Amino acid sequence: MIKTTILRGKKPRLKNPVLIEGLPGVGHVGKLVAEHMVEELGAKKIMEIYSPHFPPQVIVEDDGTIRLVRNELFAYKSKGKHDLLILVGDHQSATNEGHYELCGVFLDIAEEFKVERIYALGGYGVGQLVETESVMGAANNIKLVKELKKYGVEFKANEPAGGIVGASGLILGLGELRGIDAACLMGVTSGYLVDPKSAQAVLKVLCKVLEIDVDMAALEERAAEMEKIVAKLREMEQGQMPPTTDEDLRYIG
Amino acid sequence: MIKTTILRGKKPRLKNPVLIEGLPGVGHVGKLVAEHMVEELGAKKIMEIYSPHFPPQVIVEDDGTIRLVRNELFAYKSKGKHDLLILVGDHQSATNEGHYELCGVFLDIAEEFKVERIYALGGYGVGQLVETESVMGAANNIKLVKELKKYGVEFKANEPAGGIVGASGLILGLGELRGIDAACLMGVTSGYLVDPKSAQAVLKVLCKVLEIDVDMAALEERAAEMEKIVAKLREMEQGQMPPTTDEDLRYIG
Amino acid sequence: MIKTTILRGKKPRLKNPVLIEGLPGVGHVGKLVAEHMVEELGAKKIMEIYSPHFPPQVIVEDDGTIRLVRNELFAYKSKGKHDLLILVGDHQSATNEGHYELCGVFLDIAEEFKVERIYALGGYGVGQLVETESVMGAANNIKLVKELKKYGVEFKANEPAGGIVGASGLILGLGELRGIDAACLMGVTSGYLVDPKSAQAVLKVLCKVLEIDVDMAALEERAAEMEKIVAKLREMEQGQMPPTTDEDLRYIG
Amino acid sequence: MIKTTILRGKKPRLKNPVLIEGLPGVGHVGKLVAEHMVEELGAKKIMEIYSPHFPPQVIVEDDGTIRLVRNELFAYKSKGKHDLLILVGDHQSATNEGHYELCGVFLDIAEEFKVERIYALGGYGVGQLVETESVMGAANNIKLVKELKKYGVEFKANEPAGGIVGASGLILGLGELRGIDAACLMGVTSGYLVDPKSAQAVLKVLCKVLEIDVDMAALEERAAEMEKIVAKLREMEQGQMPPTTDEDLRYIG
Repeated sequence: MIKTTILRGKKPRLKNPVLIEGLPGVGHVGKLVAEHMVEELGAKKIMEIYSPHFPPQVIVEDDGTIRLVRNELFAYKSKGKHDLLILVGDHQSATNEGHYELCGVFLDIAEEFKVERIYALGGYGVGQLVETESVMGAANNIKLVKELKKYGVEFKANEPAGGIVGASGLILGLGELRGIDAACLMGVTSGYLVDPKSAQAVLKVLCKVLEIDVDMAALEERAAEMEKIVAKLREMEQGQMPPTTDEDLRYIG
Repeated sequence: MIKTTILRGKKPRLKNPVLIEGLPGVGHVGKLVAEHMVEELGAKKIMEIYSPHFPPQVIVEDDGTIRLVRNELFAYKSKGKHDLLILVGDHQSATNEGHYELCGVFLDIAEEFKVERIYALGGYGVGQLVETESVMGAANNIKLVKELKKYGVEFKANEPAGGIVGASGLILGLGELRGIDAACLMGVTSGYLVDPKSAQAVLKVLCKVLEIDVDMAALEERAAEMEKIVAKLREMEQGQMPPTTDEDLRYIG
Repeated sequence: MIKTTILRGKKPRLKNPVLIEGLPGVGHVGKLVAEHMVEELGAKKIMEIYSPHFPPQVIVEDDGTIRLVRNELFAYKSKGKHDLLILVGDHQSATNEGHYELCGVFLDIAEEFKVERIYALGGYGVGQLVETESVMGAANNIKLVKELKKYGVEFKANEPAGGIVGASGLILGLGELRGIDAACLMGVTSGYLVDPKSAQAVLKVLCKVLEIDVDMAALEERAAEMEKIVAKLREMEQGQMPPTTDEDLRYIG
Repeated sequence: MIKTTILRGKKPRLKNPVLIEGLPGVGHVGKLVAEHMVEELGAKKIMEIYSPHFPPQVIVEDDGTIRLVRNELFAYKSKGKHDLLILVGDHQSATNEGHYELCGVFLDIAEEFKVERIYALGGYGVGQLVETESVMGAANNIKLVKELKKYGVEFKANEPAGGIVGASGLILGLGELRGIDAACLMGVTSGYLVDPKSAQAVLKVLCKVLEIDVDMAALEERAAEMEKIVAKLREMEQGQMPPTTDEDLRYIG
């Protein structure tokens, strides 16, 4: 395989589709949200994307079978205004140029389905444990910025200071060049831990924006578990407790 | 040379061929098994594979001549059910994309010879000295998993946790996309030492699976030597002995 | 996007144009000069250059919108002898080969506009705080060296000892192969700090060479601010003062 | 520039030409020998080789002009049996694949001139100061090994143990695939210092092999200077003398 390759299922007809990208990144926030949506909505897989820009790696499943690392596209036919395309995956590109190529592929798909808008989901790492849940935004046009502010998304001048790196950033940047509306929703998170609580915050905003309902029980449960871990970490920080060997800590990624 | 290049000898006619891959990796387990088989079975070289994805390096032979680093394919006409193709080599790809390209080349060869199955051999590093010999498996379809379990191959959910990286993994993953049955046999090993004992364990399974006999004396001898080293390492670990300067330790790779 | 891509505005007619390159580099000297010129002269943007050789990154603007990292070309119609093309940008290439490709693109543009000469601006890092302002030069032909010496530009045998790395160097080197006159003007700087004072020194030389006037007030102001910081650093060096937490230090890049 | 590019002067007619490669490497031994030969023999430059696989860098000359890093080919019409082609340069490839591509280019040139043999010159780093001068060899066929042994070149089984990495190795390895005789002559050297004494040892062998005379005065002078430095280093090693600040040490590269 010397080129990015797409395996396609039957192409669905979608109504005013919106593309949601949730590839792995800071705190796995985007990935948690997108995978949760696929699960809860029962979205149907319509594409697998393989690429030499991903690491040369297979993942071993529960039953001992393997599968090549990949990105996947799911489709969900909604009863609301917008059908959804949801992009999830094991990895982002392992190379610089690969990011540009793959995001180009994602935008080709967006154009093929005439998506009205793209939401790129991610985390915004602040380097310390986060008390309150908040969602930072960035968008590739000012109209979108204004619209998202109404939903409580925060926009701060020049933040993140280092820009947005990787697929979420490039989808917005390359999307602008093609005239595709795209916004990034970033759950504020420590950046140290997989953060289902931050994912919940992002999902709440997304549900409001898309006027859909997604059951959050599973995510809440994971968030509650994580809360316990965070509480312990705080204790340890304050009381100089020795690190626990509690099994719960195995979730720390 | 700007492309992967194959030098071909005369193409043999093979009966129900099976491809065995034993490139360098964890504990050099796969390499030890495959090179031992080539040696003991008197397999005949039929291809040399050169690639700009290998390191820019030549190896100096005993007589002062050199040869470019490469992968080699050997053929063995068996009296049993399956003739064998055995892939060995000095290196795996040095780059990400190179892994995808080279494994594509290996699968082209598998298709050219209409191989029935591929066994990718490797080591499974557990980070500590290993007492009992065991062979972990992974496969690109569930039928193969079931079949291999009968031969004592162990399958554990999601292990190796980090997936299988490099040629052995990709051959299974890319093989699946092409509909080629492929399984990985991984000798459990410390990961710190070249491990002929683990290689022996893998070879035993492979001989049963393929219904062939391979003389193991040479491998047993190397394994016995290594056992002595391991015994010394254990002593040192337990008794806090100072590291020996014994010549035997020169084998530690 | 798998290739370097240029978005073009209307092509201006330019009189004896000179190209000025000020991409990010040592002490951001070149970038400071070129961006200051664009600002003060009111130069007009005529091209945006995007490339997979840049980092996969977008920059967040003041209003929450983003833009893909890029290089930009501005044109300025002068009342003097030479119209100007000014090349600025967020990044240089992130890869070796990318530098060669992008500088080839810059020289294609230079040839398209039949530029008479290129000035590549940069910093020359000496590893310690610099008292006096001086500008080092290098050029791709001896006539240019002689001419620039008249303007006080210093040339020292084999300096910088490590050669000139990146866009400024390659524009001269590849320019020579195409027969395009090009010189590098390097403000001597510590290399530790963004250095507007050094930028001022380079701009003064450039104004004399091009026989143009550029208001330096903004640059002087930034230089004055930086002077204060440098003074503090000196004090700290000499008096072993503990590092200050003064807000002014936030400018140190 | 996105491809390796050759600028050619007038092509000379050469008699039984031999190609000598002396690119930078361990102890700069090969480079010292080849550049010394170009100088002393008054060889004439016939090609310049530029490549995006070299670092993106220009070198500043004595007069303030620059030149792009490159490799150069010189031709020398001898009165003896063999005319010479001598390959020197500022750098080897900065990338893996680049090594393969560039050595392919060198071999294209060798074939274009129908060279009878290639001598790739280099250093063999042993990690400690070297008392006696000796030259290690490797070749891409056994006849060459036997021939070179007569000239005192030493061949040891599997040495260098790590193989020969870079241009010298690849020229032999890729040369073998094309049926071009090639040998590597490696001056034994510490690997820590630029080593003109080791270069002298290599040059002596090469002069005998090629039946030519090359004045060695300049190289002897540099070797004598280096000897003084080495003597001091030895003293320091033995007597635990504090490091000298003697100006002679400036040559240590």
